[in-house]
Amino acid sequence: VTDADDPLAAFRDRFVFGDEDTIYVDGNSLGRLPRTVAERSAALVEDWGERLVTGWSDWIELPQAVGDLLARAVLGARPGEVLACDSTTVNLYKLADAALAVRPGAIVTDADNFPTDRYVLEGLAARHGRELLLTDELPDRELALVCRSHVAYRSGGLEDIAAVTAAVHDRGAFALWDLSHSAGAVEVELEAAGVDLAVGCTYKYLNAGPGAPAFLYVREELQERLRSPIQGWFGQRDQFAMGPRYEPEAGIARFLAGTPPILGLVAVQAGAELVEEAGIAAIAAKGRALTSLAVELADGQLAPLGFELGSPRDASRRGAHVALRHPKAWQVCRGLIERAGVVPDFRGPDSVRFGFPPLYTRFADVRETIERTRRLVESGAHREVDPTPRRVT
Amino acid sequence: VTDADDPLAAFRDRFVFGDEDTIYVDGNSLGRLPRTVAERSAALVEDWGERLVTGWSDWIELPQAVGDLLARAVLGARPGEVLACDSTTVNLYKLADAALAVRPGAIVTDADNFPTDRYVLEGLAARHGRELLLTDELPDRELALVCRSHVAYRSGGLEDIAAVTAAVHDRGAFALWDLSHSAGAVEVELEAAGVDLAVGCTYKYLNAGPGAPAFLYVREELQERLRSPIQGWFGQRDQFAMGPRYEPEAGIARFLAGTPPILGLVAVQAGAELVEEAGIAAIAAKGRALTSLAVELADGQLAPLGFELGSPRDASRRGAHVALRHPKAWQVCRGLIERAGVVPDFRGPDSVRFGFPPLYTRFADVRETIERTRRLVESGAHREVDPTPRRVT
Repeated sequence: VTDADDPLAAFRDRFVFGDEDTIYVDGNSLGRLPRTVAERSAALVEDWGERLVTGWSDWIELPQAVGDLLARAVLGARPGEVLACDSTTVNLYKLADAALAVRPGAIVTDADNFPTDRYVLEGLAARHGRELLLTDELPDRELALVCRSHVAYRSGGLEDIAAVTAAVHDRGAFALWDLSHSAGAVEVELEAAGVDLAVGCTYKYLNAGPGAPAFLYVREELQERLRSPIQGWFGQRDQFAMGPRYEPEAGIARFLAGTPPILGLVAVQAGAELVEEAGIAAIAAKGRALTSLAVELADGQLAPLGFELGSPRDASRRGAHVALRHPKAWQVCRGLIERAGVVPDFRGPDSVRFGFPPLYTRFADVRETIERTRRLVESGAHREVDPTPRRVT
Repeated sequence: VTDADDPLAAFRDRFVFGDEDTIYVDGNSLGRLPRTVAERSAALVEDWGERLVTGWSDWIELPQAVGDLLARAVLGARPGEVLACDSTTVNLYKLADAALAVRPGAIVTDADNFPTDRYVLEGLAARHGRELLLTDELPDRELALVCRSHVAYRSGGLEDIAAVTAAVHDRGAFALWDLSHSAGAVEVELEAAGVDLAVGCTYKYLNAGPGAPAFLYVREELQERLRSPIQGWFGQRDQFAMGPRYEPEAGIARFLAGTPPILGLVAVQAGAELVEEAGIAAIAAKGRALTSLAVELADGQLAPLGFELGSPRDASRRGAHVALRHPKAWQVCRGLIERAGVVPDFRGPDSVRFGFPPLYTRFADVRETIERTRRLVESGAHREVDPTPRRVT
């Protein structure tokens, strides 16, 4: 595969590139800046300065409008099923709590799920007096809620969302998916897969910036049965009547809490529009090609240096990032950043994680990433790096 | 009082003014755009584009750094007692839940408290099996938590935060203050008043933009006893070890949840720095002078037209806004916006709310506001406005 054959090649110019010598392969931690996000953020600030409070007549629609855009372009969901709001953590809390309030039984997630998912569920298990079972299986007891990540944050392994959701439903439980590492990287078909609940972040493959608002999805048929534990005024029916008692709004809006973060929402909108323009199918196909090239080159150049593939070998079972395991992964990772002009991510205990966001990653970048890694480790320069992992994101 | 004598007069130039003919007296709904906020937001976006994930080494400190700035410049709190994060609603939920988890008894708030406060507390009361008592008093039964607004959103009435907190403590309850309409408008002395918990927003008198991140305060002595119900990874001790079990971080950081909204936080930082530069004592003094002028002029010009003062007459008992009650308040409010070039706010059932943020409001603006209101109502033009209140913020 070459960049000359890449139908998405032109999208690279839609992003800001400062230092062209550095290969950035950590877009799955924080995506690059799209030019439209910079423009739209500046325009929103200007709009606020000019229109002041009257701007709210438009802004107030953004959580749902951006949600509908995400539903259509990224999530395979219907209009009125998605909101852009709050953080992934807060959204997970809201939806998991809502599910537990209406269904008895234990909570299941995997021991290797992303930390915030495990921690939030641990807190809710204690609160609701439920067991939290950390397992990849569906244990043989009454289950209320099963929470999985669609793409695993460490390995990049891609779950079969339809099959897992069906198995969860067979057990009478709600399926709650964390799409943080899949939204904007691979096809997601929430409606077709029958998913109940989902959350995810927008600062990875949706390129909306550090800490940009997250999203939540509640299947239309469930919305009237579920209630957010955080009864905020933006989830209130007839909000500006400011009535005496809380009555949840009809539809997805009941899962809003406080005043929505408008500056962040326009960034999510611009980022998601870029994904819509490219098309998620083309993005996902390129992601498979990029990661396949990385795996092939790693097999040839890095396996002899002690690297093992930490991701599925089958491209259809991977997201858009690849983990390579190495006994000195931390030193390799820091050595790449400090000495080789490559920015990957370390994920303990022993993974170097290379993210290849399809919208702006070239096949040449994949080749360069693997070659620079080979040269670093062949030279032994990584051994000079302090071996103690430090606090990094 | 005249603008020539105003020691803060020069601060008006620090804000963006588009249409100079319009008198904006709704800065207590959404503050104006400070030039530094526009600059800092653009710089952050540029910083993201250049530094990418490595920017997090600085950004990760922002919730606490901006919190410390707010503590010092706005809240009369100590370092390590304030975080900038999430929305006011989510922060209120976290703190009220944490308080209820460690103290039995009923919840008290006033029937006229801001809707989101009432709704959040109503939800928590149901969850914890407590009574929610809507009253200005402290009823004679066991109390866990008393939640008040420092400045009332409708009337502008200013509570005696130290006296009320002391009375709440005498009853063995936690005092939780909503500072949304006071932070940046009047002096707040959380440490001196012995306040336990507080929340507030930054898009009013702190001028951080629509839906900018809110803040929360937890008195240092309480932090180790209280836990956030939302156990997110940013509240986890040794976050990037990503350990198996949630263990709350020491200090105020345990009240963080998900990834902090960096673009919003730099806006809060720039907005709060402007308040720090002007000094909250000078801001509050000017606020009292502005509202006193408004009351005096309304007494003379508007009382004969059927307006009644809906705010305390004693300037030391008011925030920086004034409510005028009128039987046709909705039509007056819309008539001012549509026909008179004045932007106030309507608060049902019968209040026109004029906000006079001291940093950019001139005494001439107060005179013009009252005169344009008089001319509108004298002309009867407000009666041509559709009398049905519509959804507005």
